[in-house]
Amino acid sequence: MERYDIAIVGSGPAGLSAALNAKIRNKKFIVFGNKNLTNKLVKAPKVNNYLGFYGLNGEEIKNKFQEHLDAMEIKITHERVNNIYAMGDYFALMVNEKMYEAKTLILATGMEYTKAISGELEFLGKGVGYCATCDAPLYKGKVVTIIGYNKEAEEEARYVSELASKLYYIPMYKAEYELNDNIEVINDKPIEIIGDIKVNKLKLQNSDLETDAVFVLKDTISPGQLVPGLEIEDGHIKVDREMKTNIAGCFAAGDCVGKPYQYIKSAGEGNIAALSSVKYLDNLKVK
Amino acid sequence: MERYDIAIVGSGPAGLSAALNAKIRNKKFIVFGNKNLTNKLVKAPKVNNYLGFYGLNGEEIKNKFQEHLDAMEIKITHERVNNIYAMGDYFALMVNEKMYEAKTLILATGMEYTKAISGELEFLGKGVGYCATCDAPLYKGKVVTIIGYNKEAEEEARYVSELASKLYYIPMYKAEYELNDNIEVINDKPIEIIGDIKVNKLKLQNSDLETDAVFVLKDTISPGQLVPGLEIEDGHIKVDREMKTNIAGCFAAGDCVGKPYQYIKSAGEGNIAALSSVKYLDNLKVK
Repeated sequence: MERYDIAIVGSGPAGLSAALNAKIRNKKFIVFGNKNLTNKLVKAPKVNNYLGFYGLNGEEIKNKFQEHLDAMEIKITHERVNNIYAMGDYFALMVNEKMYEAKTLILATGMEYTKAISGELEFLGKGVGYCATCDAPLYKGKVVTIIGYNKEAEEEARYVSELASKLYYIPMYKAEYELNDNIEVINDKPIEIIGDIKVNKLKLQNSDLETDAVFVLKDTISPGQLVPGLEIEDGHIKVDREMKTNIAGCFAAGDCVGKPYQYIKSAGEGNIAALSSVKYLDNLKVK
Repeated sequence: MERYDIAIVGSGPAGLSAALNAKIRNKKFIVFGNKNLTNKLVKAPKVNNYLGFYGLNGEEIKNKFQEHLDAMEIKITHERVNNIYAMGDYFALMVNEKMYEAKTLILATGMEYTKAISGELEFLGKGVGYCATCDAPLYKGKVVTIIGYNKEAEEEARYVSELASKLYYIPMYKAEYELNDNIEVINDKPIEIIGDIKVNKLKLQNSDLETDAVFVLKDTISPGQLVPGLEIEDGHIKVDREMKTNIAGCFAAGDCVGKPYQYIKSAGEGNIAALSSVKYLDNLKVK
């Protein structure tokens, strides 16, 4: 498997700024992000404190960023990373049924991740998962519930419905759902995931569902859930001034490392994180 | 005397980014800097890692920054701060014969300051000074030497020559000097400032000058000399992740707080420093 020098998770200003520097420094890198680059930015009204741009709104700034990426031939990989494991000398990034490897990791995941449901963390790996397609074979002939936060979750639901004996789909967004007939859509609010050794029930506001598994398919998973062992302090990834986390080779930048939540602060930190990562890679070579 | 909320020293990306946020937050602020905004930036070749700008050189980026300032009606004060004293609840900024007061201070002085000459720090205040016009009355009828690093120093030399019995002018730059006839220009390299209790000699490469005072008129004074008591670590101002220095109400950002020396890193830090300063000011009000 090809191993990247740097894997960047997130395509907001921090992730993009890191990517520019990874490119300039000739590193083999991959950026995981979404088509809008950052949902937070495109929703922003006029931004006047990004030095050099005056009077632009979030959408216009996003376009400037995209032009910059295009000019430097940087592509964003539109895949969602479900889990990242520090393997010692590299990181394993799980993307549904695929795996990527990278020597260093830059987390630029922002702060717009979905809060965990009661019981979610407790039963993670014991019937609760973030990737339905990955774990589907485990639930062949069983009852599976998918809590979907976006339209992409529907694709996973369609796939899992072919294996499961019963599939409940709980949409956390409004849209025309494109689902198979054998999928039961439940419009209710999840309250708590319940079980003993493993999950056996999902409590909703107005009813209870007997289920063997609950998949929570969110836009973004919080960094602490994404990278087991990552040190979190007051709700943010703990970093030093070089953007180092507590895990060797893992750096972080942007909103996920702390306030103020500002675009240029994130871009500045992305720059630092990338250069710290390059320095780390150079030291690996020396050894 | 009017007291500013925030005094920003430096007009590179860190100082300017701080200024944008001071303006947006409706603070009374002043920015000390130079006409080129930053000499380092205008000399820069193409910069490709300032997210949002691709393929621009330093001069072009400087123009973008200037347009941004103009659009927000932010003016730079073209004066050189010689000394800053932490007075407890405010800072006193000495600019030649003038003084400014501010409740908080943001240092964004960069790293392009001139190295001290041997003996300079030892005799500072004992015949060595950074502001000739301020201290000139002390040297009436005496021998004064001015080491000038830029054309502006010539104006101070002309003024001091009217009071001193003898004025030596040692230019550290090449230009057509505009000086009075009673000023003796010496083209030689300063090696060491010598004295016992006070300065009495300036040793040059090829000769020695008997002198009662030596004024060193540089573009930028190092932060440690500028602000007595400021904690310096490995040649940079020591700050935490909120850009706080060891002095209450004093923040710092940009190259002067450490590597990497990068424009967007500086701009990001200027943003943080300004918001930390605003938070500090808000807390003053509560007390």
